Amino acid sequence: MSTTRKRGFAHERDLASRFWNYGFAVLRAPASGSKTKRLLYPDLIAIYKGKVLVFEIKTMKKPRSLYIEQNQIKKLVEFADRAGGEAYLAVKVVGSGEWVFIPIYKLEKTEKGTFKVKRDVISEGYRFEALVSIIKGVKKLTDFTKEP
Amino acid sequence: MSTTRKRGFAHERDLASRFWNYGFAVLRAPASGSKTKRLLYPDLIAIYKGKVLVFEIKTMKKPRSLYIEQNQIKKLVEFADRAGGEAYLAVKVVGSGEWVFIPIYKLEKTEKGTFKVKRDVISEGYRFEALVSIIKGVKKLTDFTKEP
Repeated sequence: MSTTRKRGFAHERDLASRFWNYGFAVLRAPASGSKTKRLLYPDLIAIYKGKVLVFEIKTMKKPRSLYIEQNQIKKLVEFADRAGGEAYLAVKVVGSGEWVFIPIYKLEKTEKGTFKVKRDVISEGYRFEALVSIIKGVKKLTDFTKEP
Repeated sequence: MSTTRKRGFAHERDLASRFWNYGFAVLRAPASGSKTKRLLYPDLIAIYKGKVLVFEIKTMKKPRSLYIEQNQIKKLVEFADRAGGEAYLAVKVVGSGEWVFIPIYKLEKTEKGTFKVKRDVISEGYRFEALVSIIKGVKKLTDFTKEP
């Protein structure tokens, strides 16, 4: 396995452990490249008492806009629809070690059909504790909305 | 990978595909032996609109009683609790190609601490279509209960 690939898995495990430590059931997708890819798998799912979160995971060295293949978004959305859950892009800015979560509906479709997330949309994504609080019902979405 | 192990994965994929074809979101656990095992993973999970099914998978050549390690049951139950889902033992009788599903609470704890499922409990397990109908809310559990 390449170093980059191993590092990717390390980030996935990091996120999986965080959700687990907050009481979620967590499952990562099987390694890609196998026959399992006939089915549509997200990178990670986290479930809390019937509330399902579905993640596509990206890492970046410093804040920037992201482009994601149409197909990856389609599989994420289909999985979330079947599960009755919510699809998020989970982005780790490696330097800061911080995860941010962007709801899939905030992605913009480009003319070429790929999806784009602007840098400022990423920086305004939910932080880990915010997402967990929302899912657990401790806080409402609006508690994390900036005042005008 | 050994032939037995490959065959095991083939059965898991078979079950995953069936649930997928019936509209479920499905995720298999990552291959065991890796660091991922620090977390507790079931063999397979299937989710339909927020209803979560968690499976420990067993195969057998012909109907017989099964014994399962306490630890495997514990991890299955903890995962299901966190997810707010239901835990099942999924048993494939290889000859018949049929899957049966036994709710975890039907397992008996032996004096040694392992769990036992009697042959007749297995043969009275839910068939695939029955389980799917129950989860989708098309039929009630009692529709599949034998008349006295």
